[in-house]
Amino acid sequence: MQPGLKVFAPASVANIACGYDVLGFALEGPGDEIVVRFSGEKGLRITQITGAQGKLPYEVERNTAGFAAQKLLEHLGETDRGIDMEIHKKMPFGSGLGSSAASAAAAVMAINELLKRPLEKRELLPFAVLGEQVADGAYHADNVAPALLGGIVLVRDNEELDVHRLPVPRGLHAAVVHPDVKILTKDARQVLSPQVSLQQMIQQTGNIAGLVVGLYQSDLDLIARSLEDVVIEPQRASLIPNFYRVKEAALQAGALGCSISGAGPSIFALNANSVIAERAGKSMQRAFLDAGIDCRLYLSPINQEGAIKL
Amino acid sequence: MQPGLKVFAPASVANIACGYDVLGFALEGPGDEIVVRFSGEKGLRITQITGAQGKLPYEVERNTAGFAAQKLLEHLGETDRGIDMEIHKKMPFGSGLGSSAASAAAAVMAINELLKRPLEKRELLPFAVLGEQVADGAYHADNVAPALLGGIVLVRDNEELDVHRLPVPRGLHAAVVHPDVKILTKDARQVLSPQVSLQQMIQQTGNIAGLVVGLYQSDLDLIARSLEDVVIEPQRASLIPNFYRVKEAALQAGALGCSISGAGPSIFALNANSVIAERAGKSMQRAFLDAGIDCRLYLSPINQEGAIKL
Repeated sequence: MQPGLKVFAPASVANIACGYDVLGFALEGPGDEIVVRFSGEKGLRITQITGAQGKLPYEVERNTAGFAAQKLLEHLGETDRGIDMEIHKKMPFGSGLGSSAASAAAAVMAINELLKRPLEKRELLPFAVLGEQVADGAYHADNVAPALLGGIVLVRDNEELDVHRLPVPRGLHAAVVHPDVKILTKDARQVLSPQVSLQQMIQQTGNIAGLVVGLYQSDLDLIARSLEDVVIEPQRASLIPNFYRVKEAALQAGALGCSISGAGPSIFALNANSVIAERAGKSMQRAFLDAGIDCRLYLSPINQEGAIKL
Repeated sequence: MQPGLKVFAPASVANIACGYDVLGFALEGPGDEIVVRFSGEKGLRITQITGAQGKLPYEVERNTAGFAAQKLLEHLGETDRGIDMEIHKKMPFGSGLGSSAASAAAAVMAINELLKRPLEKRELLPFAVLGEQVADGAYHADNVAPALLGGIVLVRDNEELDVHRLPVPRGLHAAVVHPDVKILTKDARQVLSPQVSLQQMIQQTGNIAGLVVGLYQSDLDLIARSLEDVVIEPQRASLIPNFYRVKEAALQAGALGCSISGAGPSIFALNANSVIAERAGKSMQRAFLDAGIDCRLYLSPINQEGAIKL
């Protein structure tokens, strides 16, 4: 067996409070690894899946990484190539940390590298988004784009994949806690009212614009004021036991802002530096533990690279 | 009589498509002039109003400029000062061009200059906003802030007056047509549904964030894609006869985007340069004239100074 080409793609935090479905950033870890190699067979096969407790399908068409890779191979006219793919899940599912996005991003990156980069990294995005769609049914890039490209990413329009990297103020660090609580993305979407008040929309547009300005200006106070979600967080908070205590713990510890990561149950805080991130993260973790909820803490600067060949 | 101190404050375009209640920019003209001078009497008096066809009250408390000036004088502990104020309206009311905001901005600037600048220009904003509130009942700064400070302005939060100047790409020019049609701001607000769909909110937040990125990056294509209002414009378009033809005329002429200025009936287009602005403006004007509606055209770069002492 050939040694294979290994790619890592990171977890990501979608929404970032005021940017429901349009903002996300990548963490340095955790993340997923995909290994690909040419085989003597015809077509793409998934030969191994680890870390998924048997929950992921081996059928290419039903697997996020497989489907993303397949769509890319179709685009490239390379479906006859024999390719074996291993998927090593190294992050939790259903955590709100973009697990399927990480797999999809790693898959397209791996195929592209194996075929000697026929496409630019950015051009891989639509195929990764198609892969993610297999997992949660929606065509949106707020996890996939940061998982693939790194950074803090604005998806102005999900259908057009009009995607923009935003500047990252020096020192910005995330603390993310993943409590041992189950929420399905579909449930998290169903809890949302299809309507928003005009007043909430005004606040949300003001905040997302303020956040973008804050990132461009490295204005941490403005970032802190803007990291507020008046629409989604109030509706989803009750799905996460102890949410408001955890948030309060982060803010008390000096976090710039704190909200639900993606569809939850993970909760993220953004912080001015790594010291505050660690303090905020530990406070958040303690707030969960105090309520008898086990939880895992991730500390990370904003990942600037996204998916990388290892 | 002393010669008096004269201040000009410009018209402004609020909302800028995707920034309902949170974005605005200033024009170089038209605008209002306020003249102030010390008098032998006690307190503030409005001694002359021109250009208002008798529609503006002389009572300080009921007049936008008077009330703004009065609130500033109270803040400064200068209410005993004898000050005479003339208001010269040089722009139309109810045009959607921030007429009351121009008067309020000019008034506070004039008082501050007369008293030898006890406050920074930026600190005058809350008093001008109070003045504007007399005119339309709402406490919002999306016209007042650009009229006072100039530029393209984000009001992240109207209550906190968290106000930020955004970068203006070189060459950006506005064309604004003011048709001879009456809309009251209150009516324009009443036509709006108090609810917005979640999907619309996602698009609107994506677009406003895209617009801010476009301004920072001088990315005119991104600005063009982002200058879309999926929430307010569709509801208000019917208040302006021929709106969609006028908009189409602007876009056909090469405008980056076109939407309703403030509460209307004026319509603005943003353009990459003055040549396109003139072409777009004339096309918009022609589209109104073809429908038998008289209209006035204003062409202007983004005003970078706001209220100025003349």
